[in-house]
Amino acid sequence: METIYSEKHKLRDAQTELYGGQLVYPHERPSRAEYVLNRVKDSELGAVTSPEDFGMDPILAVHQPDFVSFLQTVWDEWKAAGMKGEAIPTTWPARRMVQKCPNFIDGKLGYYSLACETSISEGTWEAAYASAQVALTGAKRLNDGAKGVFSLCRPPGHHATTDLYGGFCFLNNAGIAAQETLNNGAKRVAIVDVDFHHGNGSQDMFYQRDDVLFISLHGDPMEAFPHFLGHADEKGEGAGEGFNFNYPLQPGTPFSAWREALADALNKVKEFGAEALIISLGVDTFENDPISFFKLASDDFITYGEDIAKLGLPTHFVMEGGYDVDEIGINTVNVLQGFEGG
Amino acid sequence: METIYSEKHKLRDAQTELYGGQLVYPHERPSRAEYVLNRVKDSELGAVTSPEDFGMDPILAVHQPDFVSFLQTVWDEWKAAGMKGEAIPTTWPARRMVQKCPNFIDGKLGYYSLACETSISEGTWEAAYASAQVALTGAKRLNDGAKGVFSLCRPPGHHATTDLYGGFCFLNNAGIAAQETLNNGAKRVAIVDVDFHHGNGSQDMFYQRDDVLFISLHGDPMEAFPHFLGHADEKGEGAGEGFNFNYPLQPGTPFSAWREALADALNKVKEFGAEALIISLGVDTFENDPISFFKLASDDFITYGEDIAKLGLPTHFVMEGGYDVDEIGINTVNVLQGFEGG
Repeated sequence: METIYSEKHKLRDAQTELYGGQLVYPHERPSRAEYVLNRVKDSELGAVTSPEDFGMDPILAVHQPDFVSFLQTVWDEWKAAGMKGEAIPTTWPARRMVQKCPNFIDGKLGYYSLACETSISEGTWEAAYASAQVALTGAKRLNDGAKGVFSLCRPPGHHATTDLYGGFCFLNNAGIAAQETLNNGAKRVAIVDVDFHHGNGSQDMFYQRDDVLFISLHGDPMEAFPHFLGHADEKGEGAGEGFNFNYPLQPGTPFSAWREALADALNKVKEFGAEALIISLGVDTFENDPISFFKLASDDFITYGEDIAKLGLPTHFVMEGGYDVDEIGINTVNVLQGFEGG
Repeated sequence: METIYSEKHKLRDAQTELYGGQLVYPHERPSRAEYVLNRVKDSELGAVTSPEDFGMDPILAVHQPDFVSFLQTVWDEWKAAGMKGEAIPTTWPARRMVQKCPNFIDGKLGYYSLACETSISEGTWEAAYASAQVALTGAKRLNDGAKGVFSLCRPPGHHATTDLYGGFCFLNNAGIAAQETLNNGAKRVAIVDVDFHHGNGSQDMFYQRDDVLFISLHGDPMEAFPHFLGHADEKGEGAGEGFNFNYPLQPGTPFSAWREALADALNKVKEFGAEALIISLGVDTFENDPISFFKLASDDFITYGEDIAKLGLPTHFVMEGGYDVDEIGINTVNVLQGFEGG
């Protein structure tokens, strides 16, 4: 399987994450991608190639222009305002407040964010743009006939909505790839999000549409980030009703229960008649992940890669989360090798 | 004029405020109240007395029970979860997300907050409770016939809504006092908020009611905290329509322009037929305030105290913000002396 990878992810190297009331070095850090890349190479999974540049249009196909402009200029505005740290919002439009974007950068940050653990640092936009191009290149490979392709995206994307960043995500790589796959001619695309955290951004992006089926397996939002989306009763709206499914799972969920939910999800993908499948591939379901609470062992990642392969669909793996740096490469490549052997 | 003051404000002594992407010692700190208290004593304004205890009922008269329970237990829950710093939210229900309170403390913080600059520390609830009792004691003095009374509340209150904390505020002291004043027999109470920041909590609390007139003079929310409420077109809803007025003012606003807005506001109080007046007294309109942008000089505070006195209403001054510690006492007492001499 081909891996698409850009060195530009290194431009995203924030020094601070708000965690437990302290500013710590971020869990989402450059070494994550390096661990995965090294394992891809060591395991001889296949070629590692650089992305093409598809420009802004495919990004603007799913994200609001004002939000994208904000991402492009936020760092400069923040520094121009004399702020000393990395860019972190301090207030946001809470319930019963007004959804109108302020002029001052501190207010803009709150308007365009859904979380404040994610500091914006110099180079964040450039890395997010490159990450989206990685996913777009993956979409092209699928259109060119690949059975499977791996977009080693960093920063991740599934928490980013049309107009909100957070959860370490800025542009929704999987969402951008899904839209591109439709533009390439597919009638129906499914996204199955196996990251530990609910893919709130992807859900929100396609919630009123019937051409993208979104399914997420994740830690129950009552217990886990992003906390305010991902309940089982969120099934889509309008034309999108019946095209969104969530499997919120409890702390300590073992692989057997997780795999049952995946089987159900894959069955829905089949019923939907998807012509292409995107896997939002987070490996923070791993038993030793530092910020998650599922109990998958490394071999389980091979097994579920095989399960996915049985659908027989052209499949685009898009890298999302996974924070146990020592094992992130092994578990990610296990899914891909399971898929290729399955 | 009598000053109501409780030493328990010192229990609110958070060590961290998220400011400019860094964790700094909070602008809202115990010394603020000490500066004001010392000036009250030095200027022989009048007696300084301790608050009575009116219990929880008057707090629950305007705040949601679940929110109050949260404030009472958040610190213990946070520490029990193993968090190392002070309690700061990291994610919240942004637009199109679900307004449902999670189980995990990190999610609860986001559910009940409108800002993350305000760390919750040990003792915060006890201080907020005492601050509310100060305001309730002030309300009693007014009912007992005082022409004017000063509730030296700390922590401040005007950003706190029925179910949200933030902006250094937890319980809305002015709102609690307004409701108590109605319960004491007044038919119509006006709150005029002269703090630099919009009194979003007070506005929200009484937005659908016609027995409390709320008027705020403040930095335009397009430029200043709380950013997402305080626009001129917010005039009340339902029965409350026409009983809410905002005067958003631009950076660099001089006293002359500010005083014109106050005159307009006081005229509305008169037309409303208020039987009692509450002044949400923030002195961060001062020209040297570190986090604000109006240009009032110390003598201007005397002048506007005189302007308020001309209404001839029983007036309850409730302390809100003001962060230039060297001058906060002078400017606060200037308003009160202006009122007494006016």
